[in-house]
Amino acid sequence: MLICRTIKEIRDFVRQARSRGLTVGFVPTMGYFHEGHLTLMRRAKEACDVVVVSIFVNPLQFGPREDYDRYPRDLDRDVSLAREVGVDAIFHPSVEEMYPPGFTTHVDVEGLTECLCGLSRPGHFRGVATVVTKLFNIVRPDRAFFGQKDAQQALVIRRMVEDLNMDLEIVTVPTVREEDGLAMSSRNVYLSPEERRAATVLSRSLEAARRAYESGERDAGRLVELVRGMIAAEPRALVDYVEIRSVPDLKPVSRLDGPALLALAVRFGSTRLIDNLVLGSPDGVL
Amino acid sequence: MLICRTIKEIRDFVRQARSRGLTVGFVPTMGYFHEGHLTLMRRAKEACDVVVVSIFVNPLQFGPREDYDRYPRDLDRDVSLAREVGVDAIFHPSVEEMYPPGFTTHVDVEGLTECLCGLSRPGHFRGVATVVTKLFNIVRPDRAFFGQKDAQQALVIRRMVEDLNMDLEIVTVPTVREEDGLAMSSRNVYLSPEERRAATVLSRSLEAARRAYESGERDAGRLVELVRGMIAAEPRALVDYVEIRSVPDLKPVSRLDGPALLALAVRFGSTRLIDNLVLGSPDGVL
Repeated sequence: MLICRTIKEIRDFVRQARSRGLTVGFVPTMGYFHEGHLTLMRRAKEACDVVVVSIFVNPLQFGPREDYDRYPRDLDRDVSLAREVGVDAIFHPSVEEMYPPGFTTHVDVEGLTECLCGLSRPGHFRGVATVVTKLFNIVRPDRAFFGQKDAQQALVIRRMVEDLNMDLEIVTVPTVREEDGLAMSSRNVYLSPEERRAATVLSRSLEAARRAYESGERDAGRLVELVRGMIAAEPRALVDYVEIRSVPDLKPVSRLDGPALLALAVRFGSTRLIDNLVLGSPDGVL
Repeated sequence: MLICRTIKEIRDFVRQARSRGLTVGFVPTMGYFHEGHLTLMRRAKEACDVVVVSIFVNPLQFGPREDYDRYPRDLDRDVSLAREVGVDAIFHPSVEEMYPPGFTTHVDVEGLTECLCGLSRPGHFRGVATVVTKLFNIVRPDRAFFGQKDAQQALVIRRMVEDLNMDLEIVTVPTVREEDGLAMSSRNVYLSPEERRAATVLSRSLEAARRAYESGERDAGRLVELVRGMIAAEPRALVDYVEIRSVPDLKPVSRLDGPALLALAVRFGSTRLIDNLVLGSPDGVL
């Protein structure tokens, strides 16, 4: 497995693979791998000849009071996990390699980014869209793999790829969960044992909403209230948002008559977690 | 010569060329070709195996009170001129093909775009950067060719290509001029005969500045005043801006101790013309 820190090295690697007629799958990550990341890599491995994984904690997508500095990092562990899965190359650039002095260009996906996490985290999706554009231009993959856990991110990337005519396929992969239902996230390590137990209310409330939907409930307000009510009963949880929005446009909906995203962000102490559910889609994936 | 209107067609054409190991040169234009455009195509032809020219009057780069509707168009003439030069494919998409319903993504190059034409034409460079990103992603050229006449545009594109790691080379080609010095522009057809005569003051004033620079003048203010004075003596001319800025950062400069851009925009009646000169660069090109 190649581990490289420069754009030139990873470009040379991909060019060589391409010149041998191989297809390239790409999994952009911020590292600190959990089973969600590894699932993305396995999916990439199944679908493509060569798999490139980037590990880059992107400062551009963190707000000034967010957790950029303390975001968990463990390169050695990431490298050995990626190797086990059969990843072919890890691209692990420095901040200076990605944003040299004078850097000043950004990619903005409007409309989709002014709600949900875009409201709570101004500039976040601009940072995501910009770094993903850079990574796509560096790696030039045939397919890139994103987790459904970051549903809004996946929709923003899809929109960007379509709008800017990027020549690759975006694959969204279902959220991987702990045994008790908590969606896997590198940020789960921030939780105290009490917060960790309390955080299961997120998946439990989404499951309750799914059952209500399957029993015929189509009123978005009532589904949201069901989720909010369950989270409100958990004293350690502080709701940032619980919303139902259309897929793929993320417009507000009052009745569910097409695929819709039930998305939530909730704080436990200083840790902000997100989770979501796609309703009205055959496979539950975006 | 292929003439196509859809993204799929031009992509197929380029893919086929690439699979035969040919290099691809690209000249993005808004059509209504003059010798400046044809020079770009000839340079592309010399440097690359296959030349693709796009003809697209991009609504995104025109302000609401600008000349999008009356911008001159003559596809038949453009096609025959391109054929004479040996262009291999023309991509001439509709507005709907480039901006389908729901389009919402933009590329912003900050810093470089808040001065000169960026001040007089808010949103212009955002429209340019966005359409050029799309065109680059559609055509995926090895090299793209831009005229030095649009110097700020060329610098913005270079910055964008570097910042977003687009994998191609930007070539800037010297401005082509009429016999009396007027920089070639599709907008020159807007000029009345009197305005056309008056417009020669632009290249004459730039030439005067060049001579002053060559005689040792390094004070930016005095060079600007020289140009402004000559233009002020022409009653049909109304200055939008005359400025000297650093290359490639477009920072204000007071003394010329490195390459600098002397750039101007001047109105003649309702027609706005631009021209420029690079001082302190060995070949006078950006």
